[in-house]
Amino acid sequence: MGLLRSWVQSANAPDCPFPLNNLPCGVFSTAEDEPRCGMAIGDFVLDLAGLEEAGLVTFDAGPLLDVPFWNDLMEAGPAVWADLRARITELLAEGATEKAAVEPFLAPLSEVTLHMPFLVSEYTDFYAGRHHATNVGTMFRGAENALPPNWLHIPIGYNGRASSVIVSGTDLRRPWGQVKGPDHPAPSFQPSRRFDIELEMGAVVGTSSTGPVTVAEADAMIFGYVLLNDWSARDIQAWEYQPLGPFQAKATATTISPWIVMKSALEPFRVPTPQREVPLLPHLREPGPMLYDIALEVGITPEGGTETIIARTNYREMYYSAAQQLAHHTTSGCPMNTGDLLGSGTISGPDKDSRGSLLELSWGGKEPIAITGGTRTFIEDNDTLTLRGHCAGDGFTIGFGACVGKVLPALADPYAR
Amino acid sequence: MGLLRSWVQSANAPDCPFPLNNLPCGVFSTAEDEPRCGMAIGDFVLDLAGLEEAGLVTFDAGPLLDVPFWNDLMEAGPAVWADLRARITELLAEGATEKAAVEPFLAPLSEVTLHMPFLVSEYTDFYAGRHHATNVGTMFRGAENALPPNWLHIPIGYNGRASSVIVSGTDLRRPWGQVKGPDHPAPSFQPSRRFDIELEMGAVVGTSSTGPVTVAEADAMIFGYVLLNDWSARDIQAWEYQPLGPFQAKATATTISPWIVMKSALEPFRVPTPQREVPLLPHLREPGPMLYDIALEVGITPEGGTETIIARTNYREMYYSAAQQLAHHTTSGCPMNTGDLLGSGTISGPDKDSRGSLLELSWGGKEPIAITGGTRTFIEDNDTLTLRGHCAGDGFTIGFGACVGKVLPALADPYAR
Repeated sequence: MGLLRSWVQSANAPDCPFPLNNLPCGVFSTAEDEPRCGMAIGDFVLDLAGLEEAGLVTFDAGPLLDVPFWNDLMEAGPAVWADLRARITELLAEGATEKAAVEPFLAPLSEVTLHMPFLVSEYTDFYAGRHHATNVGTMFRGAENALPPNWLHIPIGYNGRASSVIVSGTDLRRPWGQVKGPDHPAPSFQPSRRFDIELEMGAVVGTSSTGPVTVAEADAMIFGYVLLNDWSARDIQAWEYQPLGPFQAKATATTISPWIVMKSALEPFRVPTPQREVPLLPHLREPGPMLYDIALEVGITPEGGTETIIARTNYREMYYSAAQQLAHHTTSGCPMNTGDLLGSGTISGPDKDSRGSLLELSWGGKEPIAITGGTRTFIEDNDTLTLRGHCAGDGFTIGFGACVGKVLPALADPYAR
Repeated sequence: MGLLRSWVQSANAPDCPFPLNNLPCGVFSTAEDEPRCGMAIGDFVLDLAGLEEAGLVTFDAGPLLDVPFWNDLMEAGPAVWADLRARITELLAEGATEKAAVEPFLAPLSEVTLHMPFLVSEYTDFYAGRHHATNVGTMFRGAENALPPNWLHIPIGYNGRASSVIVSGTDLRRPWGQVKGPDHPAPSFQPSRRFDIELEMGAVVGTSSTGPVTVAEADAMIFGYVLLNDWSARDIQAWEYQPLGPFQAKATATTISPWIVMKSALEPFRVPTPQREVPLLPHLREPGPMLYDIALEVGITPEGGTETIIARTNYREMYYSAAQQLAHHTTSGCPMNTGDLLGSGTISGPDKDSRGSLLELSWGGKEPIAITGGTRTFIEDNDTLTLRGHCAGDGFTIGFGACVGKVLPALADPYAR
């Protein structure tokens, strides 16, 4: 499939991240209007709430876009997702008869503010990249014990904190936490000195489940994908994570891209997971390709400086797909809900410059990496970290919008009021 | 403080769990009415939503009880909680002038159905009982490594799954999961054979926070407490929990008691945490007694059989209080919200019959315990597990209602539709 041409001319450029093929879902506000649902098209955002109010988009179930989040639409299920997509494609296609009626609902992207695109019900983060798990395992437990015995059999995951998920562009603050170095007799409470990123994709659960679901059913439940940066305080993590896993090290913030790219926009880019080293049990086997060919990169920009791209990798490097992770998540009967967010786990490639965290890039801080105007082991105050991702189609591009966060200095006294 | 006498005579019995001193918060329905907020008093439930509709209870902010959950009232904060309590105490006290107006809003407890008392925002579970951590650590890692190095310095916790929290009386089903015994070459997917309870208290967060809070501030944020049973599949847990903690082993269900006992009802029963073995860092020190003297017990009833009490312990055995846990939870800047639920961790005492899990009671399944008509290592199909708790006041009792769950057999095929 090639480019779907739109009467929004900027959407037809081969490198535009938001062609008619994409139609990602976001929430935006303008100087005049409160936050509302919209889709990106070319250099514009299409006001979906406005189209619904005007009767240009309707649903059998009644209004689904009259709220400043996509959860109601997601909950309505895959048939409604497809209908909406078909209708918007019809309205925006080159030669559309309703162009004049739709045009007033376009706002320039440069003039809007983007908000969280959905209400996060619960957030789960996985550890499903082979290279990342091997790198981190080697650093923490030695090369012989790098991969835990269960790693090739189940997608290892832990529950994160939904309240800490923020949208791209929201500043965050270096956290305080309890840390203890191996050479210190006692722990101390101080600002994190090893604050890091994790380059991930996030899968957004669209429809709910109440019992175990198959991998195929799980794939059908997924509404779309976002870029995701799972900010991680490595020094806090090292002290707290045994025996029950990461907790405060991962609770400061998780940043997502402003646009949810619907699964249907990603269909042309499906790729299989890598060859299994040992066969999976039947309930975790994939009926078809469940990963996506999404090129990813991480940039770091010091305050007042220029950006250096410090990592380039691809979502296809993952060992487990989001559908497998979601299927595993339900094995115990765990109910899943609209708005649940599943982090893929850090996406590292096989090469040194394809690693998705500073922990790996600087090998635990021992090998500083060069950036324009300096070096880095971990994040320094006022650094801005940017994740980007895109799928390269035949004459078109699918983008997610950047996933950006600036790390402000820690508070001098976190308890001062 | 002794018994507060009520014109509801059944509330004045010294062993009644719901005297005027208690006024716990629940959600109930009758044959005629939809679920609504109520408080237990004697053998009755008082229809709070009805009182609000009738103008007998009002709030400056407008209606807070016109929804079938307590979250709106909790969000309104401690001053409103105190005002509500004072008003209901006034309405129900012996000699109350408004008795005739209030009496129609009482429904016999025996005729109502109880529902989840609040919407669980997020659920966190801790590992804060010294005896439990030592017992489990000894079984899993040997006596020398029983307590992890961080254990005496921070309340170890992990994020659980809010979607799996259910109210007392809801049946649950034995889960399937991936397990691997040490003698097996490969894992298998099967129903859990080591399904267990964890006897805990749950703290319900009433007001939200956006940055680190002190222990005193955390205590002020807590609305009340419930009994909590953190059902745990030990065989699934053993295979999955390294390196990122429990996941599917704890995601089948967590049962809470139907009544939230407000913190104010527990004030007379405050007790300090045990002597610290090593001093805590200043931000985790308690400004006063933050635990409560709550006697707890666990009963097991086989299908068609009689109940055996298999454990008796007390909430005062915990090493960390809920206020300390909540304060630690915010150190990273993690936002906390109304309706967050914090499990205390398993409450085991020093003696064999004061252990709050079958894992400990049967020492990993090696020492079956005797129950009426048989023995148990872990839960068998159709067993009903009941947690109970009470505070013994001077001439009165504070109860939570039983926290009951029956374990149905696993599905023959979890993927059959």
